[in-house]
Amino acid sequence: MAEKPHHFAPFWADAAARCLDEVRLARPHVHALTSPVAQVYTANLLLAVGAEPSLSQAPGEIEAFAERTHAVLVNLGMLDAPRRDAAARAVPILGRRDVPWVLDPVKVERSPERLAFARELLAYGPRVVRGNEAEMPAMADALDPSIVRATTGARDRVVQGRRWVEMRNGHPLMTRVTATGCAATALVAAFLAVEPDAFVATGAALLAAAVAGEIAAETARGPGSFQPAFLDALYALERNQLHDRASVA
Amino acid sequence: MAEKPHHFAPFWADAAARCLDEVRLARPHVHALTSPVAQVYTANLLLAVGAEPSLSQAPGEIEAFAERTHAVLVNLGMLDAPRRDAAARAVPILGRRDVPWVLDPVKVERSPERLAFARELLAYGPRVVRGNEAEMPAMADALDPSIVRATTGARDRVVQGRRWVEMRNGHPLMTRVTATGCAATALVAAFLAVEPDAFVATGAALLAAAVAGEIAAETARGPGSFQPAFLDALYALERNQLHDRASVA
Amino acid sequence: MAEKPHHFAPFWADAAARCLDEVRLARPHVHALTSPVAQVYTANLLLAVGAEPSLSQAPGEIEAFAERTHAVLVNLGMLDAPRRDAAARAVPILGRRDVPWVLDPVKVERSPERLAFARELLAYGPRVVRGNEAEMPAMADALDPSIVRATTGARDRVVQGRRWVEMRNGHPLMTRVTATGCAATALVAAFLAVEPDAFVATGAALLAAAVAGEIAAETARGPGSFQPAFLDALYALERNQLHDRASVA
Repeated sequence: MAEKPHHFAPFWADAAARCLDEVRLARPHVHALTSPVAQVYTANLLLAVGAEPSLSQAPGEIEAFAERTHAVLVNLGMLDAPRRDAAARAVPILGRRDVPWVLDPVKVERSPERLAFARELLAYGPRVVRGNEAEMPAMADALDPSIVRATTGARDRVVQGRRWVEMRNGHPLMTRVTATGCAATALVAAFLAVEPDAFVATGAALLAAAVAGEIAAETARGPGSFQPAFLDALYALERNQLHDRASVA
Repeated sequence: MAEKPHHFAPFWADAAARCLDEVRLARPHVHALTSPVAQVYTANLLLAVGAEPSLSQAPGEIEAFAERTHAVLVNLGMLDAPRRDAAARAVPILGRRDVPWVLDPVKVERSPERLAFARELLAYGPRVVRGNEAEMPAMADALDPSIVRATTGARDRVVQGRRWVEMRNGHPLMTRVTATGCAATALVAAFLAVEPDAFVATGAALLAAAVAGEIAAETARGPGSFQPAFLDALYALERNQLHDRASVA
Repeated sequence: MAEKPHHFAPFWADAAARCLDEVRLARPHVHALTSPVAQVYTANLLLAVGAEPSLSQAPGEIEAFAERTHAVLVNLGMLDAPRRDAAARAVPILGRRDVPWVLDPVKVERSPERLAFARELLAYGPRVVRGNEAEMPAMADALDPSIVRATTGARDRVVQGRRWVEMRNGHPLMTRVTATGCAATALVAAFLAVEPDAFVATGAALLAAAVAGEIAAETARGPGSFQPAFLDALYALERNQLHDRASVA
C-alpha cells in the first residue's frame, strides 16, 4: 500500500470518504465560472455535498468573489466574452492567494479560439485540468507535469508526473445527461478546497462522482430520473459504499 | 383574531390558500428579472402555481414586457450589465403603472457594487424586499417603513412598519437546493399580483413555500428528488394542508 | 394509406419510431441557439434521444459549430444581442451547406423587435417554423408555402403547402413546465437531421414528444416529477407505444 497507494482501491475509497466528510464539515466556498448549461447542476451538486457555491461573472464583482473563495472552477463550455473576462481577472488573484483551481477545457478541440484561451490560462497554474478523451489530447503538450491531468470517459484516468490511477466506476447513463462532466469537475474543485494533494483530491472526486452515478443508475428509469438520483446519492454517499464499489487499476 | 391577525396561524393559512386559488384562476403574468441560475426553477415554480412567467432582459423588449405584466421580481444574483439595464428600464414603468414588484438583493453583503445598485432601486418603490440573514442587514437602514421586509432562514420573519409575523415552517433540505430563496421570492411576486396588501401577500407566499417544502421533504431522498417534489407539492397545495401545518408566532 | 398518408396514424407512428431509431444510431450533432431558460432541458432532451447537442453562441465560435452540425434550432425566447448575432452568423452557413434548421419564434406577438428579427431570419430558409397559437398567426403571412408550419397546443397542427396533419396526443401537465415547446422543437431539429422530408420529420417529432408526455403524466405527481419522467419516457420510447397511442386526424 505504501509502495503504490494510488493503485489501491481502499486508499481511494478512504480519500473520497475523507474529502466528503471535510467538505460537509468545513463548507468551503467554491466559485464556479461555468457554462450556462452547467450552472444549475453545478450549484446543486456543490450544495448537495455541503459546499457553498457562487457563480458571479460580473466585472465589478469577480475580484470580490475571488478574494473570498476556497477553490475555483473555470469551465470553458459555451465560452462567451463575460466569462472570458471574469476568468482572466480571477486567475491571477488565485495565484497570489494560493487558492486551488481546476480548468475544464470543454470542446477545445472544436474551436481554435477556445483552445488558445485555454492555453493562456495554463500560465496561471491550475492545479488540475479535467477533460474528456477528445479535449485532453488538444491540451496535452501545453501541460506542465506538475498539473494533474484527469481524462474522464468510460474509464477515468488521473495523471500527475509519474503518478497515475485509472478508475472504472460509473454508468453509461452519465453520458445521457448534460453537464455531468462539468459537475464532476465541480466536485474536484470542492475536494481541492480541503485536500492539499491535488492528485489525491482529483482521484477522490472522480471516484465519488462515479460511485454516486452507479448508485443513482440502480434506481433511475432513464436519464431524467438519473439526475435527481445522482444528487441524492452524492448527498448521502458513505464510506462503506465507496469501499464496496471502488474499482481502481 | 381581529386584534392581531398577523400572529394567528389560521389567518395566514387562509391567506395562502386564497392567494393560491386566485393565482390559479387569474393566471397573472409575472415578469422575472432573475439570475441565470434561478431562471428555470423560477419559471417552473410560477407555472406550477398557475402564473404565466416571462423572463426577457433584452433592451428592446423590456418595456413591452413591463407594460403588460401584473407583477415583477428583480433578483440581483449573478448581476450582470444586461440585467442591470433591464431592471433600470423596467422599474420606472412599474411605478407609473402601479404594478407591484419585489426585490431580492442576493449576496449584496459580498459586493459593494451590487449593494449600491440595490439601494438605487429602492427609490422606485418595491413593495417587498426579501433576503436572507446576511443580505437584509446590509439593506436595512435604506428601507422605508412602508416596504415589507422579509428575512428568510430557519425562520421567516416579515415586517412592515409595526406589523410583523414570524413563521417556523420549512425544512433543512431547502438550503441544499440552489435558488430556493429566489423561488420563494417569485411566489411573493405572484401573490402580489392578486393580493393588494403586500404584507399579507408576502407572509402568505413564504408560508406556502415553507409548507410545500415540508411536504416535499417527506418523500424526497435527498436534495435531488426534493426539487421536483417541491414543485409537485406547490402545484397540489391545499387549504387543509396549510391549516394543518402552519406554525406562526 | 397511399392516398393520404399524412392523416393515417400508423404512418406517423412508424415515422416517429424510424426517426428515433435513426437518431439513436447516427447520433447527429444538433446545435441549439436557444433561450437560457430552455438550454438545459433542450440539451438533456437531445442527449436522451441520442443526439449530440452543442449550444455555443460565441461570435468567434459559431461558424465553427455551424460548419460541423447536422441540424440547428434557432429559438427566440429571451432574445438577446449575442444570440441575435449568433443566429445571423449561423443561418447563411446552414443555407450554403444545406443543413436543415427550425425556427421557434417564441413570444414574437409580444415584441415588435423580436417579430421583425424572426421575419428577417425567414429569408435564410428554415425548413420548419414551430410556434404556439399566439405566435404562429404573427408569422403566417411571411411564410413561404414550402416551409413547414407547426402550431402546437392542445392539438398540434402541421402544414406544408397542401399537406397537413393534426395530432391529438399530449397532456395538460406539459403546459405547466417551462420550455416544453422549446424541447419539442429541439426534437424536430434532431429528426430533421435524419429525415429529409421536413413535413414528416416535424409531425413525427411532435407525435413522439406528445406520446412521451402522455406516458410521463401517468407516473408524474405534478409538474416537478413530470419533467424527469418525460425525459425517461422519450429515452425509452418504443414503436408499439407510438402505435398504441397515436391519435391523428
